[in-house]
Amino acid sequence: MIPLTDSQVTRDGKALILAMDHGLEHGPSADFSSVPDTLNPEKIFETATHDAVTCLAVQKGVAETYYPSYDDDVNLLAKLNGTSNLWMGEPYSPKNWTVDYAAELGADAVGYTVYSGSNHETKMYEDFRDVQERAHREYDMPVVMWSYPRGQGLKNDTKESTIAYATRIALEIGADMAKVKYPGSRESMEWAVKSAADMPVVMSGGSKTSDYDFLSSVEAVMDAGGAGLAVGRNVWQRDDPEAILDALEKVIFEDATADETLE
Amino acid sequence: MIPLTDSQVTRDGKALILAMDHGLEHGPSADFSSVPDTLNPEKIFETATHDAVTCLAVQKGVAETYYPSYDDDVNLLAKLNGTSNLWMGEPYSPKNWTVDYAAELGADAVGYTVYSGSNHETKMYEDFRDVQERAHREYDMPVVMWSYPRGQGLKNDTKESTIAYATRIALEIGADMAKVKYPGSRESMEWAVKSAADMPVVMSGGSKTSDYDFLSSVEAVMDAGGAGLAVGRNVWQRDDPEAILDALEKVIFEDATADETLE
Amino acid sequence: MIPLTDSQVTRDGKALILAMDHGLEHGPSADFSSVPDTLNPEKIFETATHDAVTCLAVQKGVAETYYPSYDDDVNLLAKLNGTSNLWMGEPYSPKNWTVDYAAELGADAVGYTVYSGSNHETKMYEDFRDVQERAHREYDMPVVMWSYPRGQGLKNDTKESTIAYATRIALEIGADMAKVKYPGSRESMEWAVKSAADMPVVMSGGSKTSDYDFLSSVEAVMDAGGAGLAVGRNVWQRDDPEAILDALEKVIFEDATADETLE
Amino acid sequence: MIPLTDSQVTRDGKALILAMDHGLEHGPSADFSSVPDTLNPEKIFETATHDAVTCLAVQKGVAETYYPSYDDDVNLLAKLNGTSNLWMGEPYSPKNWTVDYAAELGADAVGYTVYSGSNHETKMYEDFRDVQERAHREYDMPVVMWSYPRGQGLKNDTKESTIAYATRIALEIGADMAKVKYPGSRESMEWAVKSAADMPVVMSGGSKTSDYDFLSSVEAVMDAGGAGLAVGRNVWQRDDPEAILDALEKVIFEDATADETLE
Amino acid sequence: MIPLTDSQVTRDGKALILAMDHGLEHGPSADFSSVPDTLNPEKIFETATHDAVTCLAVQKGVAETYYPSYDDDVNLLAKLNGTSNLWMGEPYSPKNWTVDYAAELGADAVGYTVYSGSNHETKMYEDFRDVQERAHREYDMPVVMWSYPRGQGLKNDTKESTIAYATRIALEIGADMAKVKYPGSRESMEWAVKSAADMPVVMSGGSKTSDYDFLSSVEAVMDAGGAGLAVGRNVWQRDDPEAILDALEKVIFEDATADETLE
Repeated sequence: MIPLTDSQVTRDGKALILAMDHGLEHGPSADFSSVPDTLNPEKIFETATHDAVTCLAVQKGVAETYYPSYDDDVNLLAKLNGTSNLWMGEPYSPKNWTVDYAAELGADAVGYTVYSGSNHETKMYEDFRDVQERAHREYDMPVVMWSYPRGQGLKNDTKESTIAYATRIALEIGADMAKVKYPGSRESMEWAVKSAADMPVVMSGGSKTSDYDFLSSVEAVMDAGGAGLAVGRNVWQRDDPEAILDALEKVIFEDATADETLE
Repeated sequence: MIPLTDSQVTRDGKALILAMDHGLEHGPSADFSSVPDTLNPEKIFETATHDAVTCLAVQKGVAETYYPSYDDDVNLLAKLNGTSNLWMGEPYSPKNWTVDYAAELGADAVGYTVYSGSNHETKMYEDFRDVQERAHREYDMPVVMWSYPRGQGLKNDTKESTIAYATRIALEIGADMAKVKYPGSRESMEWAVKSAADMPVVMSGGSKTSDYDFLSSVEAVMDAGGAGLAVGRNVWQRDDPEAILDALEKVIFEDATADETLE
Repeated sequence: MIPLTDSQVTRDGKALILAMDHGLEHGPSADFSSVPDTLNPEKIFETATHDAVTCLAVQKGVAETYYPSYDDDVNLLAKLNGTSNLWMGEPYSPKNWTVDYAAELGADAVGYTVYSGSNHETKMYEDFRDVQERAHREYDMPVVMWSYPRGQGLKNDTKESTIAYATRIALEIGADMAKVKYPGSRESMEWAVKSAADMPVVMSGGSKTSDYDFLSSVEAVMDAGGAGLAVGRNVWQRDDPEAILDALEKVIFEDATADETLE
Repeated sequence: MIPLTDSQVTRDGKALILAMDHGLEHGPSADFSSVPDTLNPEKIFETATHDAVTCLAVQKGVAETYYPSYDDDVNLLAKLNGTSNLWMGEPYSPKNWTVDYAAELGADAVGYTVYSGSNHETKMYEDFRDVQERAHREYDMPVVMWSYPRGQGLKNDTKESTIAYATRIALEIGADMAKVKYPGSRESMEWAVKSAADMPVVMSGGSKTSDYDFLSSVEAVMDAGGAGLAVGRNVWQRDDPEAILDALEKVIFEDATADETLE
Repeated sequence: MIPLTDSQVTRDGKALILAMDHGLEHGPSADFSSVPDTLNPEKIFETATHDAVTCLAVQKGVAETYYPSYDDDVNLLAKLNGTSNLWMGEPYSPKNWTVDYAAELGADAVGYTVYSGSNHETKMYEDFRDVQERAHREYDMPVVMWSYPRGQGLKNDTKESTIAYATRIALEIGADMAKVKYPGSRESMEWAVKSAADMPVVMSGGSKTSDYDFLSSVEAVMDAGGAGLAVGRNVWQRDDPEAILDALEKVIFEDATADETLE
C-alpha cells in the first residue's frame, strides 16, 4: 500500500472523487438525457475544479483530449478499465488504457474495477496484478480498486459480508484504496472499514437520490471510518452540481451532519 | 484525441473516406459481380485521387501492392482488422495488420472495427487499446473507429440510443473519429454527434441506394454536425463514380443540399 | 505483395509446386500404402529436382533432415503449419515452424494454410498476420496461402463464389500467391483469378485422378489465367512421377493442351 | 530442490508456518467475526514474532503495507496466488504477485497453491513452472507448494492415495516443500512423506479444533516424518495464540507428545 | 533432425531409455506400492548407471535434486511435460520445465509428450514447436517425442495405422526420435519404422509383463528396425532390475533373441 497524499486522491486523508465514465458504462441515452450539456467533458472538468473534489476519474479518450487544459487544477484518477452494458455474460472489464500511457498523460493515480465473484474473477485479479505492480514499481502511483463483487454466484451484492469481503480483497491483493457500494447501514460500513485495516475505503455514489438521503449515507460512511465518496450522477445529474459539492465538502471534510448541511 | 489534419483523414475538418475492403468482408461475388473491373484495386486507387476524397481505406494486402504507386495522390487509412462473413458466432474482427507495418507502408491514419455488444467486446476493446496507444504514442497517427454495436444482446443496431452509444464509446476509449451507421433521422444523428463531444463523426455509406436517398442522408448528417462520410459500394458500385463524388463534394464540403446538387 | 522471382516459387511467372506433407495431414497408411518407398523423403527430394518443379513444400522435420543435401537443386517452400486428421472440431492448423527458423534453414518462401469460414478463422488470420509480416519485413520472403474455406458454415467448399472469396481473402490480407481448390470449370477459375487481381493463383492438385482428367484441369487453370499448380499425390502416387512431370511441364510452361501432351 | 535454510522457512529442518490469507480466501465475515482485531495484520505480524514461528505467509497487499516494519523479526513466505470463494467453476488460483516483486519486498520464500485434479490443472502447472523457475534461477528462493488435489474428478480430497499423490507431484514438478492436508492417520502421512522422498512435507492446519485434537495430529505428522505445520485459524482464532504456539513449539521442535504438552 | 550421439540418448544408434515420471503421471499408490523404496529417486538413478541404460528420463523436480550427484554416470533426458491422471477432459500435457532450465541443469536431450488426436492437438503442436526450436537452435539438443495418439476421436490407440501415424507426425514436425506404443506385431512395427524414414523409433515399455512377453516384444521391435526401448515399470517394478537390464542389453545391443536371453 502506497500512502495516499494530497496531490493524488485525498486531502487530509479524505477523498471526494468525481467520476464520469457513465457514457461508456451505461451509454449517453441512459445517463445524460436529462443533462445533455454534460456530455461535453469540459463541463465535468470545470465541475472538478471545485475545492471539494480531490480528483476526477475518467477514461482514456476523455483524459487525452481534455485533461491537458486542466492539469494544474484537477488531479487525474485514470480509470483504466471499463466496458459497455450491451453484451451478455459473466462480468468482466477490459483494460482500455495502460499504466504507462496514463502516467505519460499525467495521471496522479489509477483506478481499476474488479468483479470478485465473477467467473472471470481469476483473470481480473491477474489483470489487476499487472496494473498494480506497474503503477507501484515504476511510478509510485496509487491504485484505487472499484471492488464490486458481482456474478453468477452472487445474488445480493450489497450485503454486509459482501462489502466487507470487497474491501478485504482490495487490501490483500494490493489496492491503496477501495471504492465499494454502501452496505445499507453505518454498522455494516464499519465492518467493511475494519476489514480493510489501514487501507482507506470510499463509498460509491450510485444513482441519483434526494439530497437528504444522499448526504445521510455519506455522513454514515464518514462516521463508520470511511475516507469519503466517489460520486458521479449524484453530482452532475443535478441542476446545481456546485451546491451539492458545497454540501459534500461540509460532510466529508468538516464533520458536518446531513441535517446541519441542509439547514 | 489527436486533432485530425488535412494531410490525414479530413480537409477543413470534413471527411470523405473511400473504403474498399468488401472483397474481404463480403466476398467478390456478393459485391463486385456487377462491377467486376473494380476487383482490380488500381481502379479504386484511381477513383480515390478525386479531389473530394480525403483518404482511402483498404486492407494490408491491397495497400502493400498498390499504394506505393499512389502515395503522392492518396491519403492511406490503413484498415487494420477485418474478417470474412463465412463463419458463425459472436462478431469479432481480427487484427490483420500491425500499426508498425502500416506506418512503415506510409499510412496516414489507421482504422479499426469495434463491435460493442458482442460477447467478444472486451477482447476487442483490448485489441483497440493496443492499436490506439501504438498509433498515438509511436506515430502520432490518428485512429478511426468503425463503431458498430452488434451481437447477441443487440437486435436493432441503428436505433438512436445505440448509435449515440457507439460514438460515445469511441470518444471514451480513445478514437479520433467514429464511423457509425445512420440512425435514421437528423435528430438522432444530432444526439450521436453531441454524445461524441469534440470528436468528429462520419456516417457509414452502406449498400447502394438511389442518388437522392443517399445524398439526402449525407445532407442530414452534415446538418446534424457530422464530419462527413465513409463510403464504398455507394460510390464504386455506380456506373459513374466520378459523378457521385462530384455531388458528395458539394454536399460535404460546400454545404449544398441534395436537391441543389441533383438539379 | 512481394513479386515472386524465379529463385523462389515461380519460373517465368508460373509455378509447379510439389507438395509432400500428407504424412502429417492424412497419415502414412492413407496416402502411402501403395507407394511405401515414397515415405522416404529422399525420394520426394529427388523427384523435386525435375526441371518442371519450381519448388518443394514440406514440413519442418522433413526439411531439417533432408533439405541440406538438396539446397542447390531444390527451392524450399517451408510449409509452416499443419495438423493431423485425428481430432475433431472446427478446422484449425497450428504453426509448427517459425518464419525465423525456416529462413535459417534456407527456405525460399513460406506456405500457410488458412481455413476461412472456420469458427477459428479470426485466430488463423492473426497467425497468418504474424507470419506474413515477419516474412515480408525481415526476410523479403514471399508467402503462399493455402486458402481453403472450410468449417461449420460452409457446405460446398469448391463452389465458384467460395473459391473466388478464397483468392480475394489471400490478396486482401497479404499473401503473395494463393493455392486454391479447382472450382469445377474454367469460367469459375477465371472469376477466382480476376478476384485476386495481380496476385498469382495456383490450383491444388487434390487426390489422384486419371492423366487426362488431371491435365485437363491444369489446362483449364492456365487458360483461366492461373499461375500453375501445387501438386502432391497426383505426382508421387503414380508409378512414374517423371512422366507426369514431363506432361505438366508442357501444359504449364509450354502452353500445350492436355490432348497434345498425351498424344 | 533448493535445500531450505534457517533463514527462510525452516529451523533445524522443521517448520511452523503461520498463514493469514483467509481474508482473501474465505472473507472477513467467515473467519474473523470472532476475532475482529485480527483483521489488523499488525496483530498477525506480532504473533509471527513468536520464536516458534519460522515464517509468515501472507498475500501481497498485506506484505507491502506491514512487512517493512517486521522484516528483522519475521521471515516472509510470499503467498503469490489466491482467490475468493465467491465464484463458481473448476478450482483455479490466479497469480496476484510476481516473484520479482516478492523478492523486491524481501520475501524469503514464495508459496503457490496448485489444485491438481482441477480441469485447470494443466494451466496451474504452467503457472507454477514460471514461478518455480523464476524463484530458483533468479533468486535462489525456495518454493512451497500448497498441494491440494481438488476438482470435478476428485471426491474425497484427503484420502491416503490423494495426499501421497499431492506430495509426489510437488516433488516431481519442482517444489522445495509441500503443504498438504492431513490424510487422517499417521500411517497415511508416512506414505505421503515417503512419496516425497527428500522433500519436506508440512501439514495444513485447517479449521479450528480442540487443543488436544490439533496437537495430536501435529504429533502424528512429526512421527510420520513430516517437517511440521502450516497453520492459520488454529492459532489466530484462539483467545491465546501465544499459548498454542508454545505448545506447538514443543511438539514440533522438541519432540514432545500432545499429552506431555498439555499436561 | 539432429543425429543422435552416444553422449545423449543412444549407443551405436540404439537406445535403452529408463523412465521414471510415474509418480506424476499415475501417482505413488498406483505404481509404487509394491516397490516403495523406488519412491526414492536415488534408487532409480543407481539403476540408471547400468551399462545398458543409455539415458534416464525424469521430471524437473527429480532432476534438480538428484541429477547433480549422477551427472558423470547418467545421461539425462529431461522430460519437460507431464500431468496427473486426476482431472477430466481431452488429453493435454503441460510444460513443467523450460528447455533453458533443462540445459542449465545439464540435460543431454529433452522429451515431450504429444497427444495427436486430442482436441488440444493444435496447442500441443505449438508447444512442441517452441521446445523443438529452442532445443535445436540454442542448444543442439535432441528432442524425443512421446508420440501418443489419444482423444475423443481415437478408440484403439495401438492399431497399425495409428502407430505409423504417430512416428510420421514425429518426423514431420521435427522430433529426433519417437517413442510409441507397440502396435501388436513385428509387421505393424515395421510399417511404423518405415513411416519414420531415418528417424529412430523406440517402443514404450508399458505396464509390467512377464519376462518372456516383454523381451519378445523388444526382440520384435529390434527386428522391425526399431532403435530400442523406453522403459519404466517393466524394469523398476521387478524384484531384480539388474537382471532384466542385463537381458535387455542382450536383445537390444547384442542381437540376442528373447529365447536365447532367457535360456
